[in-house]
Amino acid sequence: MEMLLLALDLAGTFVFALSGATAGVQNRLDLFGVLVLSFAAGNAGGIARDLLIGATPPAAISNWHYLAVSLLAGTVAFWRPIIIERLRNPVLLFDAAGLGLFAVAGTQKALVFGLNPVMAAPLGMLTGIGGGIARDLLLTEVPTVLRAEVYAIAALAGAAVVVIGSALHLPATAITLSGAVLCFGLRFMAMRWG
Amino acid sequence: MEMLLLALDLAGTFVFALSGATAGVQNRLDLFGVLVLSFAAGNAGGIARDLLIGATPPAAISNWHYLAVSLLAGTVAFWRPIIIERLRNPVLLFDAAGLGLFAVAGTQKALVFGLNPVMAAPLGMLTGIGGGIARDLLLTEVPTVLRAEVYAIAALAGAAVVVIGSALHLPATAITLSGAVLCFGLRFMAMRWG
Amino acid sequence: MEMLLLALDLAGTFVFALSGATAGVQNRLDLFGVLVLSFAAGNAGGIARDLLIGATPPAAISNWHYLAVSLLAGTVAFWRPIIIERLRNPVLLFDAAGLGLFAVAGTQKALVFGLNPVMAAPLGMLTGIGGGIARDLLLTEVPTVLRAEVYAIAALAGAAVVVIGSALHLPATAITLSGAVLCFGLRFMAMRWG
Repeated sequence: MEMLLLALDLAGTFVFALSGATAGVQNRLDLFGVLVLSFAAGNAGGIARDLLIGATPPAAISNWHYLAVSLLAGTVAFWRPIIIERLRNPVLLFDAAGLGLFAVAGTQKALVFGLNPVMAAPLGMLTGIGGGIARDLLLTEVPTVLRAEVYAIAALAGAAVVVIGSALHLPATAITLSGAVLCFGLRFMAMRWG
Repeated sequence: MEMLLLALDLAGTFVFALSGATAGVQNRLDLFGVLVLSFAAGNAGGIARDLLIGATPPAAISNWHYLAVSLLAGTVAFWRPIIIERLRNPVLLFDAAGLGLFAVAGTQKALVFGLNPVMAAPLGMLTGIGGGIARDLLLTEVPTVLRAEVYAIAALAGAAVVVIGSALHLPATAITLSGAVLCFGLRFMAMRWG
Repeated sequence: MEMLLLALDLAGTFVFALSGATAGVQNRLDLFGVLVLSFAAGNAGGIARDLLIGATPPAAISNWHYLAVSLLAGTVAFWRPIIIERLRNPVLLFDAAGLGLFAVAGTQKALVFGLNPVMAAPLGMLTGIGGGIARDLLLTEVPTVLRAEVYAIAALAGAAVVVIGSALHLPATAITLSGAVLCFGLRFMAMRWG
């Protein structure tokens, strides 16, 4: 289970890092700039959450896998943008999946660290949307999420499922899955018919 | 006294959140974006201070009242901008009051956490001006406070009163009040004749 | 040795603060804005590193010397820009020296705090480049370092020397010096022939 969660977390980091790298390539950054954006987009949400709940050093800093996965995503996007182009639909799917996973995992981590349940949901949402905010600010653009709210609302809905399920003492696996699937579904429908 | 301080702190959060929400409405953000700006403007100063002095999780994260007050301010500003318009003068008054309170409360919290007195004053100032900086950066504007220095100087003056009074072992209530009133007065005069 | 390190750290802070102050003057900020940029450029890298490794309060907050040195640099740049102009070459030299020192010192601090060696090098690099990123973001410019990668690569090379030397149990003074000199040399050559 631990291994599965880490694997899913790293998969989420990878797709968010791809979004950062793609934005960097579009802004004609050099390789180094692209890699910085990859790491920021893939990890800023989790780092912000960890700093705010007092879990220092943040997982993305103490565990080198997050850096490796971010650099891999950035390198692929920089050297082989064509691959990203072809994988466009899968990447969007992964992005929705990453959002769901980050929102749910972030909420649970906040609860584990004893945060007030009312605040655990926004922290889960922050985990999901923080990377995109960092990516946009580094490129001096108003964060997309401030204008495209469905992204944040999907994350918040998934986080709320975890908080409510946890308050009702429902089984952790079930509420985690439900929250992630709800977030994924909302995001996916918004992409489909938005 | 504790209750009174919390109430004043939340009042300060409310008026700063109003400033964030108003900026969001003027930039034509949707409701979600307006609420994010409300929370950022109302709480970024205190969160930055708490992270820097090692008081994690920050009060604005561990106590849900700050979130509730920020969302209330954001919702009002979004749905009833006319109310903000009519309350313009009171809001400016509250804003000056909030600045004074944040500067003074931030300084005292830094002293309580054992910070060097010389550094407690800038941390108090940061508590007062941090929200406005976060608000402006999220909208990719150069922070207003970098150009309108009277705002920061009023906060710094209030913070300095607390540091000096504390070093002289004067009664805490008296120096808190004096610092807040001095900051409020400087800010108010600057609005009046600036 | 401790004293020497602190002196070098403060020298690095001073030159980075000068770069922030100069950017502030060029953007026609008032004295207060220039001082904020001085402090941010001189200390944001070290503060970010300390927050990420859990060393709170950060050195730049707990020790008032960093603030004093930053304010001195900002005041000089604001009132006597001509001095900065005349000292242009020395300042660039100091800037390269500051980068080397920050990268090396940041890496060692991360290792001392038990960070994974693979992550200590990027944290050292962040110490060196974080101030410039904060300076540029406050002026809503895309961080220079994202486009001028030699700056970051020099910092990373210096940091890597410390990590590798530390893993091989080489003497600390030797690897510190080598890392700083390597970073300084790369940066200097890039200025000379870049």
